[in-house]
Amino acid sequence: MKAAVLKACPRAQLIDIDHSVPAFDVSLASFLLWAGTRDFAPGTVHLAVVDPRVGGERRPIAVEAGGCFYVGPDNGLLTTVVGHRRDLAAVSLARPKAASPTFEGRDVFAPAAGALAAGALLADLGKPVTDLVVLPDLGPSVVWVDGFGNLVTNLEPPIARIRVNGVEVRLGVRTFAEASAGKPFWYVGSLGLVEIGVREDRADRVLGAKRGMPVSAR
Amino acid sequence: MKAAVLKACPRAQLIDIDHSVPAFDVSLASFLLWAGTRDFAPGTVHLAVVDPRVGGERRPIAVEAGGCFYVGPDNGLLTTVVGHRRDLAAVSLARPKAASPTFEGRDVFAPAAGALAAGALLADLGKPVTDLVVLPDLGPSVVWVDGFGNLVTNLEPPIARIRVNGVEVRLGVRTFAEASAGKPFWYVGSLGLVEIGVREDRADRVLGAKRGMPVSAR
Amino acid sequence: MKAAVLKACPRAQLIDIDHSVPAFDVSLASFLLWAGTRDFAPGTVHLAVVDPRVGGERRPIAVEAGGCFYVGPDNGLLTTVVGHRRDLAAVSLARPKAASPTFEGRDVFAPAAGALAAGALLADLGKPVTDLVVLPDLGPSVVWVDGFGNLVTNLEPPIARIRVNGVEVRLGVRTFAEASAGKPFWYVGSLGLVEIGVREDRADRVLGAKRGMPVSAR
Repeated sequence: MKAAVLKACPRAQLIDIDHSVPAFDVSLASFLLWAGTRDFAPGTVHLAVVDPRVGGERRPIAVEAGGCFYVGPDNGLLTTVVGHRRDLAAVSLARPKAASPTFEGRDVFAPAAGALAAGALLADLGKPVTDLVVLPDLGPSVVWVDGFGNLVTNLEPPIARIRVNGVEVRLGVRTFAEASAGKPFWYVGSLGLVEIGVREDRADRVLGAKRGMPVSAR
Repeated sequence: MKAAVLKACPRAQLIDIDHSVPAFDVSLASFLLWAGTRDFAPGTVHLAVVDPRVGGERRPIAVEAGGCFYVGPDNGLLTTVVGHRRDLAAVSLARPKAASPTFEGRDVFAPAAGALAAGALLADLGKPVTDLVVLPDLGPSVVWVDGFGNLVTNLEPPIARIRVNGVEVRLGVRTFAEASAGKPFWYVGSLGLVEIGVREDRADRVLGAKRGMPVSAR
Repeated sequence: MKAAVLKACPRAQLIDIDHSVPAFDVSLASFLLWAGTRDFAPGTVHLAVVDPRVGGERRPIAVEAGGCFYVGPDNGLLTTVVGHRRDLAAVSLARPKAASPTFEGRDVFAPAAGALAAGALLADLGKPVTDLVVLPDLGPSVVWVDGFGNLVTNLEPPIARIRVNGVEVRLGVRTFAEASAGKPFWYVGSLGLVEIGVREDRADRVLGAKRGMPVSAR
């Protein structure tokens, strides 16, 4: 895929963001795609692929949102990005005749991403579409357990307290240093979302919590 | 190694391809080196190192093939690249006096790769050689189990059916969507080679198959 | 963090060195930061973050040493770099008002690294400091077990023999090829430090040795 991007845009600067999303986890990929790309400058092209497990052809798409481009399968991967942005345009990518039927990353997505990086207009790449696939909204929940075991929710502050897996977390702090070891607390993380942590321990383990679990806050 | 490449060619664009090959697995590395570099533009320099486990000094080499360059140890790592290309030139790299005797990656391979990226001619880097080490040809076999458990073979189409680990796979499909869940099938993968997959499952698990297993096809 | 670096220096060339240091292991990170950055050209900016587990605010710092820059938390992460270099200047980084209190990597370190890459002077980034946090010197010990199980010590040659975990290693070799399989030996590794290896096996397993174990040499 990197070779195919460079073929279309030899001066492209390739930046690896994340290769750790488990296969088939479109929901997590959607969140991390938003989280990992939100700070890049206008004009940046984001290329993401995650297999939705069940075969079936997914429409390849390119989206322009907030001045940046996203290229990938129309399988819900762009749900979080689309949900956070209003100024949206999307096209269905033309599939080259010689494209591999089993791996569109190299033959469809990467050439499109390269073309956009080289200055192509979104409209040059395919026909406009508006009916993007969007994952079902699961409501307030744990959307990511980060590498330290912190529970990242999709709730924005202000809140007073938050409940997860039957435990009510009342203590809210600004930094981990304000908490005492072993006691769960909530805080506003670097994404601007409410997170739950435990100092010197993993919140997921302490609270028996997993990604996808509902949360409720007041 | 990256620092050493940049020392020789400050404007080099460094691209990570793969850091997942298990130590000592020269055979797998040889296949993935071919698979991961075949789409890069002429002039690209590919730097690869894999330790062959058994000590012993390996001749450091640089090869020009198909307009691209390959730099690494002459331990069979270039077998698949060499086997797929005819227009080949190779040199034995001079070993700088101060080079570390235990890690040639930094002191021999990376400077040579950087020099080539900066425009040096292959002939500038050492004496021509023709007797490259080539791994034994194991015949038709599973050469890679990809991250999804698909069995990638070294067979090219057309075939009618393929047998692996005592199971004959008769169903051939164009895309995973054409198959029904749980039933093995063969298809032509993105490398142009015959692969065996199982929809919504791992073919390696379903078929009890591993890399290196022989296959036979009709 | 990569986005924040590019925001401050759009032409920066981003190079990933290592994402494998376990969370909280400042001591290992300090060694690998030195080992992984020592060969880069003057002017290179090195950005490193590792969480020291215990909360508490760490002073964000930038250091100029040997013509290169290091940006990160003042939690001991720079111990090995500082210990190997004399020509040192350091500043305490100003913390932007809008910075996330829980993740300084994106809002403090990365912008500072980008600014330095774009040509800012160290003195532009904050007030000079001289009392950098330094990890306690553990004396001669195993400072890293590399991916092959070799024991990298902080001892420089010459030595005649070395003892670790109750075993005296007398055999010294120049390359692995000189040793016989299964028998521990010492050698001078690519970092210029004494290492202990076992041909065709892992020295850590053969010797029951771990990182942090003391060694003694004669």
